[in-house]
Amino acid sequence: MEVNQTSLLSKINSPSDLKQLKEEELPALCEEIRGFLIENLSENPGHFASSMGAVDLIVALHYVYDTPSDRLVWDVGHQAYAHKILTGRKKDFPKQRTLGGISGFPNPTESDADTFMAGHAGNSISAALGMAIADKLTPGNENRKTVAIIGDASISGGLAFEGLNNVSNNPNDLLIILNDNDMSIDNNVGALHGYLSDLTTSAGYNKLRNKLSLYLRKKGILTEERRRAFIRFSNSLKSVVSRKQNIFEGLNIRYFGPIDGHDVRKLVKVLREIKGMAGPRLLHIYTTKGKGYKPAEEDPSTWHAPGKFDPDSGERLCLQKKEGSELWQEIFGHTLVDLAEKDDRVVGVTAAMPGGTSVDHLLEKMPERAFDVGISEGHAVTFAGGLAAAGKRPFVAIYSSFLQRGYDNIIHDVAIQGLPVTFCIDRAGLVGEDGVTHHGFFDLAYLNCIPGLNIASPSDGETLKNLMFTSLKQKSPFAIRYPRGKCDNSPQSQNFEYKELKAGQGRQVRKNPNSKIALLTIGPVLSNAEEAAKKLSEEGIETDIFDMIWLKPIDKDILSEVASNYDVIITLEDGVTTGGLGSVVNSYIKDSIYKPAVVNLGIPDKWIAHGSIDQLQKICGFDTDGIVAAVKQALEKRRSV
Amino acid sequence: MEVNQTSLLSKINSPSDLKQLKEEELPALCEEIRGFLIENLSENPGHFASSMGAVDLIVALHYVYDTPSDRLVWDVGHQAYAHKILTGRKKDFPKQRTLGGISGFPNPTESDADTFMAGHAGNSISAALGMAIADKLTPGNENRKTVAIIGDASISGGLAFEGLNNVSNNPNDLLIILNDNDMSIDNNVGALHGYLSDLTTSAGYNKLRNKLSLYLRKKGILTEERRRAFIRFSNSLKSVVSRKQNIFEGLNIRYFGPIDGHDVRKLVKVLREIKGMAGPRLLHIYTTKGKGYKPAEEDPSTWHAPGKFDPDSGERLCLQKKEGSELWQEIFGHTLVDLAEKDDRVVGVTAAMPGGTSVDHLLEKMPERAFDVGISEGHAVTFAGGLAAAGKRPFVAIYSSFLQRGYDNIIHDVAIQGLPVTFCIDRAGLVGEDGVTHHGFFDLAYLNCIPGLNIASPSDGETLKNLMFTSLKQKSPFAIRYPRGKCDNSPQSQNFEYKELKAGQGRQVRKNPNSKIALLTIGPVLSNAEEAAKKLSEEGIETDIFDMIWLKPIDKDILSEVASNYDVIITLEDGVTTGGLGSVVNSYIKDSIYKPAVVNLGIPDKWIAHGSIDQLQKICGFDTDGIVAAVKQALEKRRSV
Repeated sequence: MEVNQTSLLSKINSPSDLKQLKEEELPALCEEIRGFLIENLSENPGHFASSMGAVDLIVALHYVYDTPSDRLVWDVGHQAYAHKILTGRKKDFPKQRTLGGISGFPNPTESDADTFMAGHAGNSISAALGMAIADKLTPGNENRKTVAIIGDASISGGLAFEGLNNVSNNPNDLLIILNDNDMSIDNNVGALHGYLSDLTTSAGYNKLRNKLSLYLRKKGILTEERRRAFIRFSNSLKSVVSRKQNIFEGLNIRYFGPIDGHDVRKLVKVLREIKGMAGPRLLHIYTTKGKGYKPAEEDPSTWHAPGKFDPDSGERLCLQKKEGSELWQEIFGHTLVDLAEKDDRVVGVTAAMPGGTSVDHLLEKMPERAFDVGISEGHAVTFAGGLAAAGKRPFVAIYSSFLQRGYDNIIHDVAIQGLPVTFCIDRAGLVGEDGVTHHGFFDLAYLNCIPGLNIASPSDGETLKNLMFTSLKQKSPFAIRYPRGKCDNSPQSQNFEYKELKAGQGRQVRKNPNSKIALLTIGPVLSNAEEAAKKLSEEGIETDIFDMIWLKPIDKDILSEVASNYDVIITLEDGVTTGGLGSVVNSYIKDSIYKPAVVNLGIPDKWIAHGSIDQLQKICGFDTDGIVAAVKQALEKRRSV
Repeated sequence: MEVNQTSLLSKINSPSDLKQLKEEELPALCEEIRGFLIENLSENPGHFASSMGAVDLIVALHYVYDTPSDRLVWDVGHQAYAHKILTGRKKDFPKQRTLGGISGFPNPTESDADTFMAGHAGNSISAALGMAIADKLTPGNENRKTVAIIGDASISGGLAFEGLNNVSNNPNDLLIILNDNDMSIDNNVGALHGYLSDLTTSAGYNKLRNKLSLYLRKKGILTEERRRAFIRFSNSLKSVVSRKQNIFEGLNIRYFGPIDGHDVRKLVKVLREIKGMAGPRLLHIYTTKGKGYKPAEEDPSTWHAPGKFDPDSGERLCLQKKEGSELWQEIFGHTLVDLAEKDDRVVGVTAAMPGGTSVDHLLEKMPERAFDVGISEGHAVTFAGGLAAAGKRPFVAIYSSFLQRGYDNIIHDVAIQGLPVTFCIDRAGLVGEDGVTHHGFFDLAYLNCIPGLNIASPSDGETLKNLMFTSLKQKSPFAIRYPRGKCDNSPQSQNFEYKELKAGQGRQVRKNPNSKIALLTIGPVLSNAEEAAKKLSEEGIETDIFDMIWLKPIDKDILSEVASNYDVIITLEDGVTTGGLGSVVNSYIKDSIYKPAVVNLGIPDKWIAHGSIDQLQKICGFDTDGIVAAVKQALEKRRSV
C-alpha cells in the first residue's frame, strides 16, 4: 500500500499541494486516489462504495476552495476518505478505524479540515448554516466560504429538511452540494438535465438573469417584495421543462444542476462559477456508488462496507460462520418473519437499515407488512405509534444511537399513550470500529426514566426470540436491546417453541453454596461475567451470577436476595452506568439494611473512540480481566473496612 | 355558560346529532360554537385564537366523515376544542385543563374520537399514515377513512416532512388537511387560487383527468412507470399558473386548494368530493386565527392563549405582577440581551417560541444575532453547534419537553464535540394546565448520562443570571433548567454584577447545630423544602438544607458531608427521580460507610396529567406537606430499625 513515488498522489499531503497540480492532471489524480482506496480498504475494511463515488467531488472542492479556512461540512462522513487523504492523513489511512488510528468519520478532534462531527445522517446543512451565518457576523470572517455536502438519502431526513427550510431566513452564502447516487435516476431525461445545468450555471446565464432583474428593479417592476415571487416564477418555468417539481426552489434556494459528479474538470468549472455568488445555493450532482470498481458499481449495497476483499478478483473474504453462532440481527429478522406468519397484526418498521437490521427478510416475504421509511427515525417511531393505534403490532428495528433521533416520539407518540410498539434496538452497547458516534451507550438510561415501558436485553438467542414473542402478549410499549455482531448461543429457528417470559423476572445462572459475591448482568455481556467467574473460581473466589434480562420492571426478588445475602454486588452492562442497571441497583440497595458493597461496571462517563470491541471493553474495564480485578478490589476494600 | 336550549348546539352531543342538521344550518352552528368558546375561554382560560380559526373545518369534517370510525388525527391539538365539544364533551368543557377535568389536547384515554396524542407539533401525518396503512391491511377496515390535520407552522418541522416524504410509499387513502393561518398570504393571487381550487377539486375536472389517464393508458402511452412523471408534469404546469413551486406534489401527493377554511358549506362540498378518492391527497385551506372575535383576529399572537378576558370589551384580565417577582423566562431573556451587549460572541436561538422563551427581547434589539428557526428543535440544536464551531456562543432556549426532539442533536452535534452551547431549558418540571405532553420531567435524566455536559438549575433569579454568565467562561456544553412561571426572588437587572460560579459547587442554605436530617434540592423547589423545614422546626424537628445548584458535576463535598454526618437524606427535584438527582445521590451514598437512609422525592415513575402546579406537586408528594410527611416517615423507619 505504498504510494508510487512518481505518482501525483505521492506529492500531495495538503490542499495547497493539490493546488499545484494543473487542471488537466486532476482526472489522473482521482484515478490514483481510487487505486489507493481499493488497495487499502481491501485489507483494512471500511466504507467502500460511497467513498469511491465521492473522490472527484472531493478533489474538485479542495482544488477550488481554500480549505481549511473555507469550511467543508460532510454528512455521514464515511464518504469522505479522499478528504482525509488530501488533508494530511494519507499515511495514517492504513490504520483508520483501528484503536489509536484515525476515525472512519470526519472528526474535529482529529483535524482542522474536519469541521464537524458526521456520524449521524442529515446534520450537515444545519451545522454549515450555523458556520456560514457565524462568519457573516464575525469581522474578518465575512469571506470564508462554507460548503455542506449531503447525500440523497440523508436529505430525505427531517433534520436536513429543517435545515433547508431555514437556509434562506438569514443572510448567508452557503453552498449545499447534493451528492445524488440514487440508481433510480431517470436516464431518459439526461440530455435535458445537461442542458439545464449548462443553462443555469454558466456565467452567461447568470449575467443575463442579473441584468434582467436589475432592469425590472429600475423600472419599479421588481420590488423587494416581488423578488421572491420572481425567483419562484423562473424556477417554476424550469420545473416544467425538467418535468420535475423542484423542492429546493420551493424553499427559496437557488438550484444548479444536475451535473455529472465524476467529471472533475466540469466540477471545478462549475464550483468556480458559483463560488463567489451571494445567497444560499444548491448544486445537484449525480455520482455512482463504487465508481471505478466494477463489482461495487454493480452491487453498491453489498459494497457499502464489504469487509476484506481481493482487489483483483473482487472476491469478498468473508469470515467463516462459526457453528451455532448467528448474527443477533438475523435472529431478530427471522423471528420477525416467523411471528408475522403466525400473527396477522405483526408488521416491521425500519429506517434506512433493512439490511443492517435484517428487516429485509420480512420485506422480501411480506412486502406489504414491512416498512423501510428511509433516514427518518422520528417518523418511524410515530408511524409505528399510528400502526399500533389502529390495531397492528409493529416491531421497530433501529440502531441504538440512531434511535436517539426518535426520543420524543418514543415518549409522546408511543409511551404516553401506552401503545404496544416493540422497539428492537440493534447495535446496542459498544459497536467497535465505527466509534464514538455509533456506540449505543445511552438507550438503557434514556429509556429507563419513561413510565410504563418494558425494557429487556437477552443474553442468548432463545431469550431474544421469547422476548419478541412476549412483547405480543403485553399491551404496552416494549424495548429489547441487543448488540452488533454474533450471538454465541443462537437457537434452532426451525419449529422453535416460543415461551412467554414473565416481565421483570431474571434468572440465576451460577450458584455456589457459599458465595458472597453476586454478579448482576444484563445482555450478552453475561458471557464476560461467566468467564470472569471461572477465572476467579480457579483462584478460589466463588461468585454467583444473575442474568437480570429485564431493566424495567427490574427483578426485585433478585435485588432483595442479593441485598440481604451477599457482601459484594457487581453490576455489569454494555451501556452507561449512569442511569442504567448500575443506577437502578444502587437506588434499590440504598433501602437495604444489610448494605453490601456495590460496584458498577459498564461504560464510564466519558466518550469512547473506535477500536475492536475487545479492546474497548478492556478500556471500559468490563472485559473478563476487568471484572476479575473489580471483584478482587471490592473484596479488598470490604476486608479493609 | 349555559347553552341556549333553543340553539342548534343544544341539540348536538355527538357527530350523529350533527348529521341531522341541514347543510344551510351549519354556518349558524359555527357561530354558536364560537360564542360558546368565547364565553367559556374568557372565564376558564385556554388556547383561544387557533381554536376559533378551526371551528368551520371541524364542523365540516364531522358532518362529512363517519367519526369516530373514520379517524381524525389532530396536530398540536389545542385547535381542536370544537372537536371536543362535538364529540360528547360539551358539558365537560368548562372544566377543561383543570384537575380531573378534560385535557386541553386530544387524548385517546379521554375519548374514542381522540385518535392520537397531539401535544407536540408535527406528528399527525406520521401517525395518521400508520392508521391509514393499518386499515388497508386489516380485513373489514379497508374503507375506514383517515384524515390528518396539520397547521402551516407544524408542517415546517422535520417530523412532518418525514411523514410527507413517506406518504406515497405504500397504498393508502390518507387525506392531509393543511390548515394554513399564516397572515402573510399573498392576497394578490387570491383569485387565481380560487380558480385552481375549483378546477382541481371539482368532480368534473377529476373525471376528465381520469378519462385522460385511462385513454393514455389504453394507448400504451401512460405506462405504470410513466404515471408518476405524468402527475409531476400536470403538477408542474399548475405551479407555473400559480407561480408557486408545490412541494407536496414534488413528493407525489395530489394537491387540492387552497380554499377558504371559513366557508363551511364549501368545505363540506370539497370534502365530499375528495372523500372517496384513492391515494394520498392534501387539501390546503386558509383560515384566520381568532376568526369571529375581532381583538383576536387583529393580534393573534397575544390571543394564542390570552388568559381570562372580558368577552364584551376584549380586555384581558391579567393577574397583577407581584413585587419582586418576574417570570423565569424574562430573567433569561433580559440577561441574554445584557450578555449579548457585553460579548460579541453571544447569539440566541429558539424554535418557534420567541415569546414563550423571551428570546424576543434579543430578536428586537439585535435581530441579526437572534434566530427563531420555527418548529425545528433538532435543527435549532445542530445549528447552534455550527454557530459554536465557528466561534459563537449560542444560548438555545427551548421548552424541556420539546427539547426531547433534539436529543440526538445534543449528543452528536454538540456534546461529543464538546462545543460550548448553552441550553436554557424553559418549562422544566411540572407545567400545570398543559398537562402530560408538556411537563418537562425527563431532562435531568436524559442529560445526566451524556459525558462532558454541565447541568445546573438555579433556585433564584440571581443564580440563573450567574449560571448564564458562567457558561460563557466554560468551554463545554452547558444546560440550565428553570420552570414555567414566576421566580419569587428575581434580582434587579440594572447594573447586575455577574459572578462566575464554580462548577459543581452547591451551598448550604439552612444549618442547625444538631440536625441529622439533610434536604438536598435542585432548582426552585428549594422553596418547598424551606417551608417544610419551617413547619418541621415548629414541631421540634430540625433539618438542614443544601441547594445543590449543579447536577453535573455534582457537589461531592456536600455529598460526602451528608453521607457521613446525617441520618436521613431527602433528595428533592421537580423531575423524575429515576436518573435525576435522586439516582445520583443514591449512587454516591452506596459507597458511604455510614449509610444514612435516603428518600427520593420528585416525579414518580408514572404519567402526571393536568392541574395546577400546587395540585400536581401534592399528587407527586413533594409539596410542603409531602416533604414534611416524608421526613417524619423516614425518621420513624430509622427508629424502628
